[in-house]
Amino acid sequence: MKVLVTGGGGFLGYRLARALLEKGALPDAGDKSTPISQITLFDVAFPGDVDARFKCVKGDLTDKALVEATLGGDTDAVFHLASVVSGGAEADFDLGMRVNLDGTRGLLDACRKQARPPRLIFTSSVAVFGGELPEVIDDGVTPNPQGSYGAQKVCCEYLVGDYSRKGYIDGRSVRLPTISVRPGKPNLAASSFASGIIREPLNGVAAICPVGRDARLWLLPPPKAIEALIHAYELPSSAWGTKRVINLPGRTVAVGEMIDTLRRIAGDRVADLIRIQIDPLIEALVTSWPACFKTDRALKLGFAAGQDAESIIRAYIEDQKIRV
Amino acid sequence: MKVLVTGGGGFLGYRLARALLEKGALPDAGDKSTPISQITLFDVAFPGDVDARFKCVKGDLTDKALVEATLGGDTDAVFHLASVVSGGAEADFDLGMRVNLDGTRGLLDACRKQARPPRLIFTSSVAVFGGELPEVIDDGVTPNPQGSYGAQKVCCEYLVGDYSRKGYIDGRSVRLPTISVRPGKPNLAASSFASGIIREPLNGVAAICPVGRDARLWLLPPPKAIEALIHAYELPSSAWGTKRVINLPGRTVAVGEMIDTLRRIAGDRVADLIRIQIDPLIEALVTSWPACFKTDRALKLGFAAGQDAESIIRAYIEDQKIRV
Repeated sequence: MKVLVTGGGGFLGYRLARALLEKGALPDAGDKSTPISQITLFDVAFPGDVDARFKCVKGDLTDKALVEATLGGDTDAVFHLASVVSGGAEADFDLGMRVNLDGTRGLLDACRKQARPPRLIFTSSVAVFGGELPEVIDDGVTPNPQGSYGAQKVCCEYLVGDYSRKGYIDGRSVRLPTISVRPGKPNLAASSFASGIIREPLNGVAAICPVGRDARLWLLPPPKAIEALIHAYELPSSAWGTKRVINLPGRTVAVGEMIDTLRRIAGDRVADLIRIQIDPLIEALVTSWPACFKTDRALKLGFAAGQDAESIIRAYIEDQKIRV
Repeated sequence: MKVLVTGGGGFLGYRLARALLEKGALPDAGDKSTPISQITLFDVAFPGDVDARFKCVKGDLTDKALVEATLGGDTDAVFHLASVVSGGAEADFDLGMRVNLDGTRGLLDACRKQARPPRLIFTSSVAVFGGELPEVIDDGVTPNPQGSYGAQKVCCEYLVGDYSRKGYIDGRSVRLPTISVRPGKPNLAASSFASGIIREPLNGVAAICPVGRDARLWLLPPPKAIEALIHAYELPSSAWGTKRVINLPGRTVAVGEMIDTLRRIAGDRVADLIRIQIDPLIEALVTSWPACFKTDRALKLGFAAGQDAESIIRAYIEDQKIRV
């Protein structure tokens, strides 16, 4: 069983790869647990201390020949996380289209060339939703993205669906909530602050919050996101049927609640490091995303429920061994 | 005001172009009625007797340079009808992806290069719907195509939406019902029979119906489709808001009702020319499309209601000056 993780040099991709390494096995096309013989990470860059048990391929997702060579014709499992993030795709339309849409399509086409269709997890996003939305997003709400990132993601969901229907892959698209708290550095994701306002103050660094206290997000901590991606993979094909995309459970958390919870856990000195300074572009994008979901289908399919603000912050503190 | 009709050599595109010629004017970007100075038809082939007032460009939609040259940098109105039909896109996956997805994207990119963003009508289809569906499709039902044609159409709808949001075009996607009765020859559309079972017998020719009498379709006669495309164009941008796609009104008609109505209008000798001979592939595709819609939004936006089986058949008889 060969596994490919695109975006494997990124925070979530690398975490996922380590979880798979620890797990050691995944179901094959016949849903029989099979030992993992190789995990390949594909990304534009890697952290310095990558575990030697991974095979790393450095390159761009738009390099079709490299993607095909990396897949190697005999990959069984693909976790496709590589992506230009929301803020990046909005700032550079062509780059977003090239990487998020063409790159994904190139990967799907490479999968299609294999004799054995791989099982593929595509990481989509709550950013597919936008425009006039109901108060609660249930499984029947139609995506209407108000950002190019979301538009590219939803196109890819439909491609994953059609390639699956044709039998070229066994694909499943998972709409990730905003992941918080991510360790490391801020990135171009419009939601980057949702980690930054917790991470930076806990590290003694000032953090700017570009949206107001009332802004709400649909959040999921990293370990739960990893679990969900693996669960999406392990479900048998029949569980997905003709609907190859799912909204993941998470929790509705207001920015103010995040800040107040951090204050309660880590004290005023930490929480006072957060300064609200509205960035209209980021606020527009972030508040176009829905913050409240009813994820009946996911819960029925065995995906775990989300976690509250306190658990989200405490998970980060424990993970990073921070003393508060 | 320069107008481009892709698929302008096809039945619907050419009809639309003639209607625009007769109309003589369209609203400009500021919704002010403006005389049409030129109508360009773009297609892979043209009928022999094209009106000399049209400028015809013969070529493939995937030829980016030609599409851009045809647009010419100063086109105000684009009606994008060119497409590989449903049966064709299902039989040749690569061809469908290339023409329906890449071709449309090339056109959108060419539009984007213009100094003045054109207003663009994209012809989508009820084929975007499929899978487990409610009995009645209202404006809230999420596309879940069970054919590559529908998947390509829905991807393009999202691209049209995002290019519009970015201000690159003022786009509107119109989901056409099955158009019946089309004159001319059968084509590779899985729904081709919906015209053939009326057209061929009325012309004294035997017709094979590849689906059972109970199969139902959401139908619209050609003149109503043309009207709807022009109406979609004439609506001000504000009427579309953030939702750039619409389900068109039509009428639910069972195949048996079509046959019985033809029998009543044209007699047994004509209707007896129809023979039902199930084609499982066509039946699967056609019955995956919904046949019953509740098109509140379209009716509210002033699109005309559909017509019943008798009106549909009589419209064809009158249009073709057939004696029954």
